Amino acid sequence: MRVLILGGDGYLGWPTAMHLTAKGHEVGVVDNYLRRRLSREEDVETLFEPPNLHERARLWSEKSGCAVEVFIGDLTCWDFASEVFRKFSPDAVIHYAEQPAAPYSMLHRRAATLTLQNNLLVTANVIFGVHEFAPEAHIVKLGTMGEYGTPNIDIEEGWIEIEHKGRKGRFLYPRQAGSLYHTTKIMDTDLLWFYVRTWGLRVTDLMQGPVYGMVTDESGEDDRLFPFFNYDEIFGTVLNRFMVQAVAGYPLTVYGKGGQTRGYLDIRDTMQCVRLALENPPREGELRILNQFVELFSVNKLAEMVQRVGNKMGLRVQIGSVENPRKEAEEHYYNPVHQGLLELGLQPHYLTDDVLAEMLKVVGRFGANIQEHKIIRGVKWN
Amino acid sequence: MRVLILGGDGYLGWPTAMHLTAKGHEVGVVDNYLRRRLSREEDVETLFEPPNLHERARLWSEKSGCAVEVFIGDLTCWDFASEVFRKFSPDAVIHYAEQPAAPYSMLHRRAATLTLQNNLLVTANVIFGVHEFAPEAHIVKLGTMGEYGTPNIDIEEGWIEIEHKGRKGRFLYPRQAGSLYHTTKIMDTDLLWFYVRTWGLRVTDLMQGPVYGMVTDESGEDDRLFPFFNYDEIFGTVLNRFMVQAVAGYPLTVYGKGGQTRGYLDIRDTMQCVRLALENPPREGELRILNQFVELFSVNKLAEMVQRVGNKMGLRVQIGSVENPRKEAEEHYYNPVHQGLLELGLQPHYLTDDVLAEMLKVVGRFGANIQEHKIIRGVKWN
Repeated sequence: MRVLILGGDGYLGWPTAMHLTAKGHEVGVVDNYLRRRLSREEDVETLFEPPNLHERARLWSEKSGCAVEVFIGDLTCWDFASEVFRKFSPDAVIHYAEQPAAPYSMLHRRAATLTLQNNLLVTANVIFGVHEFAPEAHIVKLGTMGEYGTPNIDIEEGWIEIEHKGRKGRFLYPRQAGSLYHTTKIMDTDLLWFYVRTWGLRVTDLMQGPVYGMVTDESGEDDRLFPFFNYDEIFGTVLNRFMVQAVAGYPLTVYGKGGQTRGYLDIRDTMQCVRLALENPPREGELRILNQFVELFSVNKLAEMVQRVGNKMGLRVQIGSVENPRKEAEEHYYNPVHQGLLELGLQPHYLTDDVLAEMLKVVGRFGANIQEHKIIRGVKWN
Repeated sequence: MRVLILGGDGYLGWPTAMHLTAKGHEVGVVDNYLRRRLSREEDVETLFEPPNLHERARLWSEKSGCAVEVFIGDLTCWDFASEVFRKFSPDAVIHYAEQPAAPYSMLHRRAATLTLQNNLLVTANVIFGVHEFAPEAHIVKLGTMGEYGTPNIDIEEGWIEIEHKGRKGRFLYPRQAGSLYHTTKIMDTDLLWFYVRTWGLRVTDLMQGPVYGMVTDESGEDDRLFPFFNYDEIFGTVLNRFMVQAVAGYPLTVYGKGGQTRGYLDIRDTMQCVRLALENPPREGELRILNQFVELFSVNKLAEMVQRVGNKMGLRVQIGSVENPRKEAEEHYYNPVHQGLLELGLQPHYLTDDVLAEMLKVVGRFGANIQEHKIIRGVKWN
């Protein structure tokens, strides 16, 4: 299958490119290095600087014999986006090409505007590109569990049947997000759903929880093939941040009461989930929504696990409490369904002590790169 | 009250400016003439060309003694938007500044992109402008009944209590629109709702049905003060189009089966509704949603009424049937609540034969301007 990965330089984009080529797919990657530029502008570069995409493609080709076609440019620009669609003729498109950080979107007005424009215009160009140049192609969109927020009822997989005043209807599950970034993902879903109904697009929306880890089957221990790894408050996800904090001897930054519960998954499971979605496409005119995570943890629970495993490894891990910079429920009901991907064949990796120890060891190799001033940056929601 | 009207040149914007100044409010209007430019580009200019905004403000001031402050510029541009907010210091902002036509948004890719960018970036700048320069100001946003679509359950006023698997939650009423334009209005609501929760904004979202009419208490019979009036397939709303078709002797263009039912209101009731919302603001941190219409009609019913009244006036009105260019249900359940504005004091105007005859008479004054090629333009949803 010819698969175009938008945002192919990203934390998930590059590992996906290696994974899919290793499984025999033909892959093109598209990126404009936006995430690298924003990390530099905000002085929160990643734990190590990975080679550029052309260089990564060469390294991966030397190691695996698999080619990855590279397109560098800005997908908000139709001139570029249309050329990529025309040249590559994808059977499927994986759309990761978004500004992906909630705190970045809350940093200041310009960051909010960039997030809104980038995320919606890329999604629109993906829709128009598929419609015009690859009408049969399957769009796999990375959504987020954050679209649902933390409602007081069970979270279904995208859809809900509502009974109201004696009548029934089926609707997109009502969504209410906790950041501007997450709100742009709700808008993406609205946009895709409209064109699915109107033009008969074929779309999978993967509502993903926070991802942890760095090493995949394809990267192995070769750190030149690792994805970039943010550990700062702006672009880092919580468990990745905690691991770096543990290695640096910085008290783990639990926001508020720490009862915030989310569904997490190993980066290797993201690879599986995306491939399962690709290889089992929905029918034409269907918006299939799958909740993509493996296990629920509260922030407190994650901090305790990192502390316990870290201490066993000789780190002296402390847990700190930080005033919550976000507007979110710190204790809440949370019961999301996640059957769809298991039914497609997902074989989950769980967050065991061994997995945590392994990740802490890999992070430890880059210990000398950690800069403490990046850990907390004082981004506030209000 | 100091009221800033964004989109003050529009079909509703200009009558609102006259109405609010007549009621003693201080009004500023902002526009970049986008709607006039798009009408010209698509060769679907309005039934008559109204004077520009500065000229209208002078005419209105001569007639009424009321001043209207005029700002011309593009609200997607922060440099301009922030200057307007700083200079005017509004107590309330009425946000009409959107590309308002469903068919325009479905015309081609560039029109879709313009609609998406314009509508979302203006809404974002309104939010940022209020947050930075007028944090107490009440935002009155024109939404649309089209956000709800035509669900199989009763439509509530913005919110719904859902009982699911033995638990309960209150959510934004799930929305599913029939055009890209209407989808951008859903996104607007999502965006406003996020910042209402995060920054404590004070917002009223008026979910309005199609509006008809031209003459308001303030314009009287002075056609230099009339709002512009589109009768084409792209920018015209259905009853306004039918009236022009009746005058022109063109068979009324009923799409498909004509069972499409919506909630309609007289332009004089839009004036009332907006003023009632302004003068009864919600509390800080509240998103109040009101369904703004007076009577339900199917398209067939409207066509029959125009035919009956037109024929009594000596017009020979025929009803045509056109293949439906849209993707929409042509027969459907439709039962929307609309109590909120009545409770605030709305005194509705109903679509009586006299009202219809009066409107046909006014349109008839411009009969010589009607160009038949503008009536159907072949915009298709697919």
